[in-house]
Amino acid sequence: MAINRDWQKSMQIKVDYNNMMAEFIGDEQGFTDKEISAAKKIADEAYKNVAANRGSGMMGWTELPYNQDEIVKDIIDTAKGIRKKFDNFVVLGIGGSALGPIAVFNALCHLRHNELPKKVRKAPKFYVEDNIDPERMDALFDILDLDKTMFNVITKSGATSETMSQYLIIIDKLKKKFGDKAGEHMIATTSAQKGNLIKIAKAEGFKTFYIPDGVGGRFSELSPVGLLSAAVLGIDIKAMLKGAAFMDKLCKAKDVKKNPALISALLQYLAMNKGKNISVMMPYADSLKYIADWYCQLWGESLGKAVDKDGNAVYAGQTPVKALGVTDQHSQIQLYREGPFDKVITIIAVENFRKETLISKGCEDFPDVSFLCGHTLSELINSERKATEYALTTAKRLNYTITLPEVNAFTIGELLYYFELETAYTGAMLNIDTFNQPGVEGGKNATYALFGRKGYEATKAEMENAPKKKSDYII
Amino acid sequence: MAINRDWQKSMQIKVDYNNMMAEFIGDEQGFTDKEISAAKKIADEAYKNVAANRGSGMMGWTELPYNQDEIVKDIIDTAKGIRKKFDNFVVLGIGGSALGPIAVFNALCHLRHNELPKKVRKAPKFYVEDNIDPERMDALFDILDLDKTMFNVITKSGATSETMSQYLIIIDKLKKKFGDKAGEHMIATTSAQKGNLIKIAKAEGFKTFYIPDGVGGRFSELSPVGLLSAAVLGIDIKAMLKGAAFMDKLCKAKDVKKNPALISALLQYLAMNKGKNISVMMPYADSLKYIADWYCQLWGESLGKAVDKDGNAVYAGQTPVKALGVTDQHSQIQLYREGPFDKVITIIAVENFRKETLISKGCEDFPDVSFLCGHTLSELINSERKATEYALTTAKRLNYTITLPEVNAFTIGELLYYFELETAYTGAMLNIDTFNQPGVEGGKNATYALFGRKGYEATKAEMENAPKKKSDYII
Repeated sequence: MAINRDWQKSMQIKVDYNNMMAEFIGDEQGFTDKEISAAKKIADEAYKNVAANRGSGMMGWTELPYNQDEIVKDIIDTAKGIRKKFDNFVVLGIGGSALGPIAVFNALCHLRHNELPKKVRKAPKFYVEDNIDPERMDALFDILDLDKTMFNVITKSGATSETMSQYLIIIDKLKKKFGDKAGEHMIATTSAQKGNLIKIAKAEGFKTFYIPDGVGGRFSELSPVGLLSAAVLGIDIKAMLKGAAFMDKLCKAKDVKKNPALISALLQYLAMNKGKNISVMMPYADSLKYIADWYCQLWGESLGKAVDKDGNAVYAGQTPVKALGVTDQHSQIQLYREGPFDKVITIIAVENFRKETLISKGCEDFPDVSFLCGHTLSELINSERKATEYALTTAKRLNYTITLPEVNAFTIGELLYYFELETAYTGAMLNIDTFNQPGVEGGKNATYALFGRKGYEATKAEMENAPKKKSDYII
Repeated sequence: MAINRDWQKSMQIKVDYNNMMAEFIGDEQGFTDKEISAAKKIADEAYKNVAANRGSGMMGWTELPYNQDEIVKDIIDTAKGIRKKFDNFVVLGIGGSALGPIAVFNALCHLRHNELPKKVRKAPKFYVEDNIDPERMDALFDILDLDKTMFNVITKSGATSETMSQYLIIIDKLKKKFGDKAGEHMIATTSAQKGNLIKIAKAEGFKTFYIPDGVGGRFSELSPVGLLSAAVLGIDIKAMLKGAAFMDKLCKAKDVKKNPALISALLQYLAMNKGKNISVMMPYADSLKYIADWYCQLWGESLGKAVDKDGNAVYAGQTPVKALGVTDQHSQIQLYREGPFDKVITIIAVENFRKETLISKGCEDFPDVSFLCGHTLSELINSERKATEYALTTAKRLNYTITLPEVNAFTIGELLYYFELETAYTGAMLNIDTFNQPGVEGGKNATYALFGRKGYEATKAEMENAPKKKSDYII
């Protein structure tokens, strides 16, 4: 694909926020130009904050579109070898190590990839094991031919209990089956210096890829975390990175009204201040369904914070909700249109689908069906999307639409980077640490205590001293 | 399976609401016995309302566990024939016609059912097409052998645009391929009297199953809507119905503290009154992942209502959010523990999993991994569940746990019926019409208008007269 300047411009994703504005949605719910102007200082400061910190601390992810030439080469070479030799590629990871790979696979591969005949598929089948349910682990072994399977264990810390449990189970199986050659079925993606996995990988002789220090899990899709599986699946990872760089350039605009990630962040921030504590992400395309899942981690884990940077208790955050158009029109739209005014709904539109189907004639006698005949499914899905937008707007529900000209590696790169920047801007506006996750520790420590791990005796004692449950409250 | 009384009792699902109570979660967030006693009247009235209306109007679903002997026989016979003759069973449906079948399939079949060899699978592969994305429709045809495929078109009204579009496309393909015998590949599940599909089905000679008038889409899983595909997959549908009847009996208890659906409804209602506008459904089992999706429609579409029964504007509703344990600990728990106090989190636990995996030894030198060795994945997932419960509770977050002794047809029947009753009780407490969905019409009408359907000229004119979007608000 020749990615020249004109083509890039034709692939620019657009943010349409008309339906966030009072003119379209009414004064009570919508925003005015005046409000946006009044908040200019907030936007400017967030812009400066992100610009000043990019590339440093936990904002290493901003540079991923630019600083990976060597790594991309290694990834593409490695992927080539895997595609030749293996029929299955299995990611062992959870959270940021899983959601990005799943989202990109679903967006850019055939929607029934794993069920296609090998000849048509042209790439290994793809699995992401992001849970430790014993039934699921067992189910996987029922269908995998280990001889033909490459595993990719991904954990930055090298100590994620779920991922390392999976690793232990699988490496044991591999060693029993392949002896010294077990390592040929395992690639480790982890921190270059810290943690155990890198030590294990070196001792076992695994091929390794590194997650840079300044790239947290939920911001890691454009690092080897996501790029390796994408390349194995035959996705043009260079185009993905170019799309991200293109979006980065668009978001260099200082004027909030010209910067798509910044205006989105500001509107979400203002909406949060007005009590909109829910952010619905609703793509109208099956291929983008799991982009919403990826977004939910990015938005939820980044902004859900108890304290701000000055140590004040803020209990910030907006709960992300994934929905799918048109499917969820028959599940959630009743609530979105008639329920509490507590949401911002983001619609993701696709202008041109990669396939088309004509709705056949055949029900001439039934006007409430025959009006469909002769139209296409693209027309139907996009008309329903516009109809939903209209129905939400007339019900005074805040909504905006992000449009992708089509779904390809470049536009997906744009979209991911757009959401990452939007999240960084919003976090700056909220004056919180966007890149940590202290709230996850509580549960981890309690698990360690329950497993009798050394060093967690105090937590164990605390748990044992917690008030005993009342049987009256169990029915 | 011998479903005697002792076995049934051993399979009773339990609702543990200790962590909704002030004693465990603190006074500010939790409820006291006093508050529950003070709300006794509300619970009593909801109980009476549901008891008085059961079996009538749109509450026909309460009788499904009892009044389907003949239908179940027909379904089991039909399913037997399908299992012999076909390799694929494809549901065409959306909303309530899709979410129940998906949930039950995922709960009660092998987690990689479609990928198992035919001999092991013993039932057709299963697909539910609940969207009109043209890429997805095309992808399906890439993998289906029509000769070996049975379709089940499900729409009560016979006029659901999405489902009928799919039907038109597929029946056209079937007729081109099989001529007069096309009808042997299509079963229609619809209203016995109303709508087009029943007329089409009779004209084309399809096998038909009926959706009773008093059973709305989101309450239809225990009708032929869900039972046919379940039976085709080899699921014991009689046990499912027995489980529902068992739960119904448990919920005959008038005392709110003895009635699991009623106490849950009351606590959710009280939580909504305290501003908890989000209900998170978080099963700790991959098999129950899609039960959360099914719940999201049930809860969202039933309770999200603009007006109450007296015509007052109430904008009621609680936004359902699906999550999966332990996976979403690495995505959403940060927000749930540290974000706004705006949620009730329902954890679904499974006591005994159907499979087990031992975490192998092999990392003796690394204490932050080796503590896992020798434990099982069941221990890990259930310890992490308890740890999350503990972490939420110490952070004063409202949560309760529903425990299934194991996942089987009986307990799934119990669980579905429990949620249906809980929804009915909550709707009664809110004094809303739990069983309609007027908010869905707006979008439907706008779609008709965009498609130029006769009779929708006024909507079309209205849409054309809507304020034109400003290009300044599109970046």
